[in-house]
Amino acid sequence: MTITSARETGNAPSGTPTLRDGAFGPARELVCRECGTTRELGPHYACHECFGPLEIGYEFGTVTREQIEAGPANIWRYKALLPVPDDIETSPNTEPGFTRLLKAEHLAAELGLSSLWVKDDSTNPTNSFKDRVVACALSAARELGSTVFACPSTGNLANAVAAAGARAGIETVVFIPSNLETPKQVNSAVFTEKLIAVDGNYDDVNKLASEIAGEEDGWAFVNVNVRPYYAEGSKTLGYEIAEQLGWRLPEQIVIPVASGSQLTKVHKAFQELIALGLVEDTPYKVFGAQAHGCNPVATAYKDGVDAIRPVKPDTIAKSLAIGNPADGIYVLDITRATGGAVEEVSDEEIREAIVLLARAEGIFTETAGGTTVGVLKKLVETGQLDPAAETVVINTGHGLKTLDAVSSAVGPYATIAPTYAAFTAARIA
Amino acid sequence: MTITSARETGNAPSGTPTLRDGAFGPARELVCRECGTTRELGPHYACHECFGPLEIGYEFGTVTREQIEAGPANIWRYKALLPVPDDIETSPNTEPGFTRLLKAEHLAAELGLSSLWVKDDSTNPTNSFKDRVVACALSAARELGSTVFACPSTGNLANAVAAAGARAGIETVVFIPSNLETPKQVNSAVFTEKLIAVDGNYDDVNKLASEIAGEEDGWAFVNVNVRPYYAEGSKTLGYEIAEQLGWRLPEQIVIPVASGSQLTKVHKAFQELIALGLVEDTPYKVFGAQAHGCNPVATAYKDGVDAIRPVKPDTIAKSLAIGNPADGIYVLDITRATGGAVEEVSDEEIREAIVLLARAEGIFTETAGGTTVGVLKKLVETGQLDPAAETVVINTGHGLKTLDAVSSAVGPYATIAPTYAAFTAARIA
Repeated sequence: MTITSARETGNAPSGTPTLRDGAFGPARELVCRECGTTRELGPHYACHECFGPLEIGYEFGTVTREQIEAGPANIWRYKALLPVPDDIETSPNTEPGFTRLLKAEHLAAELGLSSLWVKDDSTNPTNSFKDRVVACALSAARELGSTVFACPSTGNLANAVAAAGARAGIETVVFIPSNLETPKQVNSAVFTEKLIAVDGNYDDVNKLASEIAGEEDGWAFVNVNVRPYYAEGSKTLGYEIAEQLGWRLPEQIVIPVASGSQLTKVHKAFQELIALGLVEDTPYKVFGAQAHGCNPVATAYKDGVDAIRPVKPDTIAKSLAIGNPADGIYVLDITRATGGAVEEVSDEEIREAIVLLARAEGIFTETAGGTTVGVLKKLVETGQLDPAAETVVINTGHGLKTLDAVSSAVGPYATIAPTYAAFTAARIA
Repeated sequence: MTITSARETGNAPSGTPTLRDGAFGPARELVCRECGTTRELGPHYACHECFGPLEIGYEFGTVTREQIEAGPANIWRYKALLPVPDDIETSPNTEPGFTRLLKAEHLAAELGLSSLWVKDDSTNPTNSFKDRVVACALSAARELGSTVFACPSTGNLANAVAAAGARAGIETVVFIPSNLETPKQVNSAVFTEKLIAVDGNYDDVNKLASEIAGEEDGWAFVNVNVRPYYAEGSKTLGYEIAEQLGWRLPEQIVIPVASGSQLTKVHKAFQELIALGLVEDTPYKVFGAQAHGCNPVATAYKDGVDAIRPVKPDTIAKSLAIGNPADGIYVLDITRATGGAVEEVSDEEIREAIVLLARAEGIFTETAGGTTVGVLKKLVETGQLDPAAETVVINTGHGLKTLDAVSSAVGPYATIAPTYAAFTAARIA
């Protein structure tokens, strides 16, 4: 199998002409989500017939629960279901995943639910679910012989790429808007010397990244030219939830929607587990969560239309602020087909939900998680979610990264002198 | 078995007179580390004969590797070796531990070591090893019938206590110095309403906590009156390292020293594993790491004396800044007996080590981890550590919590216009 050259494809990250056997594990081809046209595995992300998005097509062998359970406590336990080689564990990587699935009894009681779980991805290596997708992108970059690992980002993705690239020992370049706050710059600059500040907004940075990906040999932009491999990493969230529930599917699941990729991949994971006989084929409803300040998919859902009208984001949930989400239409398909919904909450509701989750379950989430928990609350209140059905809500990132969102909302209960008399006078507990 | 009342002991956190059977699992008694006097299990922390520190004495049953491996991917897989009940997993807790042990090939190459591993506790629920000890303290508080879960702290411990208390649904009170920076307050205040600011320094806060613990019924201060149970949580670091190495001990291990408790407990864990036949009795050397600005144990080690002379801390490694470390003398015993050492590094070396670890392995550590990696480097350079022997270094916490330490040391490589021409002109990679 050969990779066509950069000149032919216009988007090759690789100067290496050949792939080794098993470079992408059970992956067999790239398939256009729109027209179904297939293409050989390589650094391609758009269909050459209709320009639709390409995704990975597989031929799975036999995969058993026992085989998975015998694997490591990270996403590679599912390597037989991912576009990665069988020896993936031998290459340095951040070993993300197999994060906690916590039974959330207090939050359930607060919201009036009978059974609720939080899938907590804030404890991943760089504290967001992005470590999962980046680990798969890194494997693809390595197999394609890429010499530079890169991304445009303002936050979680930058952290994940910079850390994974450092650990892998591959040259790593992260592009950020030059007006990004210093703490967010530090979170990535600590891992890579090559943090590039671009004088422009995030759209400008993204556009530059696509241009570089199209022009330069050997550059693997995780969310551009190796995106089909990258996106598959989100499937592991679905696999883990099913395994951690004791190899079964939840009845309802609430997932944040930025590009919409994560939601579609969790659904794909559930469908694969059913097809492979690893879980029973029980019905489940998928719900999407957006912020009011970036609600293109929620709006289309409510309007009952199929087309997503792009918006200009204005929300504290910056990691969800994608105004023109690439997978938005698939989110509409899945939520409607499964009987779910797409709902939205205000910035104030996001802040309240962050504190609600922290005080009920001891989990400090970022604004994206606040959005998801806030939407869960609203779905219950509006009767869109069945309070008697078992529900999972996904927390995608850590509150330490968006401290400002709640710093005015919480603070000391009392300030006292350092004496026992002052303590008793304050009647604290 | 009965607990003596608060009036009798002066330090009871409990109003409950009786313990249920198996409340503390394999723990059988409290043993004075100084004079060996034993005492029944309860909310006691000081020997009533000599005022020496009490620690847990066990009677272990048969414990097998298979039994442990069949357990959950958190510290409760070792519950048969901890002072917790057999049904510990059924009570809401943060489910910490079983963090990554990463083969650090790049850092090894940088330092000239042949085999190096990083035990990375920055991915614990609240991003430090404190989640381990607090989980054990929480269990003790619950079994003792405590009504309030509390601590004095300026950082990691406050986060861990506030989160664990929230998750457990127990009233939680965290005491901090009132001049603590707002971001650090938020990290705890998000979890608990009862964040109490005390007008005084950390010593004042600590003193007040001890006074409250002595006077009030039902208060469990994790690092005061339930400290013997709390401290045992650090053993899980040792168990995990041995299991993750394939049930064997490393030849050398480098551990940060604040109170010194963690180092003594990792050693205790290794000794228990040997005694239980879970690992072979192979020799290992234990090394302690301190910051130059708080180096009482390193100084005693170098001076060849047994007494620790307290210091007034002045270092960026605030989570290691204990000027009069309670377990310092045991650290001296263990490092000397095993052939290790206690070494120290400057604040500048700490900063450099944080960036070194991040760029070599994609792990962003706080100043305590910078201290430990910096000391590892110095131990190699000074010939105190054998570069050919397999070595483990412990990273106890996350860099997001001490961002300021490196924010002036790292930053953008270049700032460019958002054009491909500007990109090529900058010759980035």
